[in-house]
Amino acid sequence: MRTVEWVDQHVRMINQKLIPWNLEFVDLKSYQAVALAIQDMTVRGAPAIGASAAFGMALAAQHSLATTRHDLLADLRAAAEILKASRPTAVNLAWAVDKLTAFALQVDGDIDAIRAAMRAEAQRIADEDVAINRRMGAFGADLIHDGDTVLHHCNTGALATVDYGTALGVIRAAHEQGKKFHVLLDETRPRLQGSRLSAWELEQLGVSYDIIPDTAAGFYMAQGEVKLVVLGADRIAANGDFANKIGTYQVAILAKEHGIPFYTAAPVSTIDLALPNGSLIPIEERDKSEVLAPYGLALVPPTFHARNPAFDVTPAKYVSGIITEGGIVRAPFEEGLRAMVASETKT
Amino acid sequence: MRTVEWVDQHVRMINQKLIPWNLEFVDLKSYQAVALAIQDMTVRGAPAIGASAAFGMALAAQHSLATTRHDLLADLRAAAEILKASRPTAVNLAWAVDKLTAFALQVDGDIDAIRAAMRAEAQRIADEDVAINRRMGAFGADLIHDGDTVLHHCNTGALATVDYGTALGVIRAAHEQGKKFHVLLDETRPRLQGSRLSAWELEQLGVSYDIIPDTAAGFYMAQGEVKLVVLGADRIAANGDFANKIGTYQVAILAKEHGIPFYTAAPVSTIDLALPNGSLIPIEERDKSEVLAPYGLALVPPTFHARNPAFDVTPAKYVSGIITEGGIVRAPFEEGLRAMVASETKT
Repeated sequence: MRTVEWVDQHVRMINQKLIPWNLEFVDLKSYQAVALAIQDMTVRGAPAIGASAAFGMALAAQHSLATTRHDLLADLRAAAEILKASRPTAVNLAWAVDKLTAFALQVDGDIDAIRAAMRAEAQRIADEDVAINRRMGAFGADLIHDGDTVLHHCNTGALATVDYGTALGVIRAAHEQGKKFHVLLDETRPRLQGSRLSAWELEQLGVSYDIIPDTAAGFYMAQGEVKLVVLGADRIAANGDFANKIGTYQVAILAKEHGIPFYTAAPVSTIDLALPNGSLIPIEERDKSEVLAPYGLALVPPTFHARNPAFDVTPAKYVSGIITEGGIVRAPFEEGLRAMVASETKT
Repeated sequence: MRTVEWVDQHVRMINQKLIPWNLEFVDLKSYQAVALAIQDMTVRGAPAIGASAAFGMALAAQHSLATTRHDLLADLRAAAEILKASRPTAVNLAWAVDKLTAFALQVDGDIDAIRAAMRAEAQRIADEDVAINRRMGAFGADLIHDGDTVLHHCNTGALATVDYGTALGVIRAAHEQGKKFHVLLDETRPRLQGSRLSAWELEQLGVSYDIIPDTAAGFYMAQGEVKLVVLGADRIAANGDFANKIGTYQVAILAKEHGIPFYTAAPVSTIDLALPNGSLIPIEERDKSEVLAPYGLALVPPTFHARNPAFDVTPAKYVSGIITEGGIVRAPFEEGLRAMVASETKT
């Protein structure tokens, strides 16, 4: 079972808004439908968004009415703009769309050849995501030891990727190695990805966990219970600053204050060398209804005032290491990240 | 309108579980009903709990079937145990119960005289709470300046007290002085006192505010928006360590990391000189259903695992000052807190 896949000439994905209550799939038959699914968080998680957008580009090619190569490429550029605008913060989205656009330009042959090649390339990106996550998991699992309690924020599991997960993939790999440890899952307000998605995944994997309110992370660190923090990233700047789900930044500060190692796990496609530092990462602000009435459950009246920044930026100084499919990058980050991108782009 | 008051021979209080949706009052006609209301958080907030418990003791005296002074005092001791066991962390509860118990011992006259005197003493404590909060507000308001953004956690307003509030009373006093400023309200999971109670109060007072997820406090501090943190306390140890709503500790660490002044506001009755430091404060752990299904709104299945510590302890080293009705206590705290208790006990 994959979070997003290509089935019968269209895209099928898990409707993550229904997890943990129902496991249902939605079928998307146009790139516009894919863009909407990204925007309304039917699919979320930087790598899953990237794969969805790649499939979206393949859909755009398939349904284009163009009869010439030139017109098809124009349609693809238009689709690329729509898909890239669906969410601003995670760079994997732009990375995948740009990759498919560039790929189309270099395919020889007629329009149907381009269509077929783009479908194959999107599939390759999706398949590669799973392989990447398993490599990341193997590197990161060494950080987890028997008896540890590991703190995790948001969801970075199979649901955030095509399969297996990034930071939750690290936890999964350690579990598959037979290690005995416990996971504290920040519930991750406002959208509750920790309690709704990560807990649902750990239930199925049989990993020992407790959901905690985001307010309790510092409490458990002060008790000496937390030995490691591992979570994901939506965009990593050249200097190692990274954007991730709102709340990540404060978990990083808490980890530093308690001397707890703090790691982010993300594929190389999350690294954006075009940005020298994290202050340049665009931060999405979402509708206040996610705070006031998550998933339609009204906590307070809709007239109350609220703000809802979806991400924050954690400066590299708080980061012990960045777990990638090529190994763990440590300070000085810029050098390590550039080398990692160069090496992974080559393969 | 008071959060808790004595009406027609019984206790009437706002049912805080229905705020912000409905303003309803419950009538409590036995001390056991008061204990239950404290336990299930129909009433919450350390000073409001203290006043409720004082009225509870008056109810215990009124409904005792004792015919001798000796038997009445035995009934009061039994009631005191029940009331004090209703919640463990806030010391104002024990303070008020012990105060009423000691008061009963020193009343001259027959059983009816004791009953009447206890009712009057509970009323005096309730009235004094309002006066105390206004004094606290006047001292604390000097910390707020035009153009500031102030961060607040949980609820410390009129609802947390008999009236006016402690930390939110400071905010209210600054507003009444005509200062123009903005308040960020941590929603305060799991029970959402920030979004349900504090936002409801600020709506009525006309104070500019936004609810934010607890995960966003660090984000707004990093943006340079937050100039002051002011929140409450449920018990203050002799060295200045204090227990307060879960999440307070991490807000304190974040404030320190960003160089933002961090104040707690609480009446002298919150100071517990019997405890040398905060590690001795008992921390209540409440049912996991508050995390999984707050106010009956199921966020995730009830079978999921969760933990729910209701309070945490903030070490004095993070505290810029403790705002009391006698003035602002600053480091070294032990000296200042002892002097404050001595001075307030005298008056």
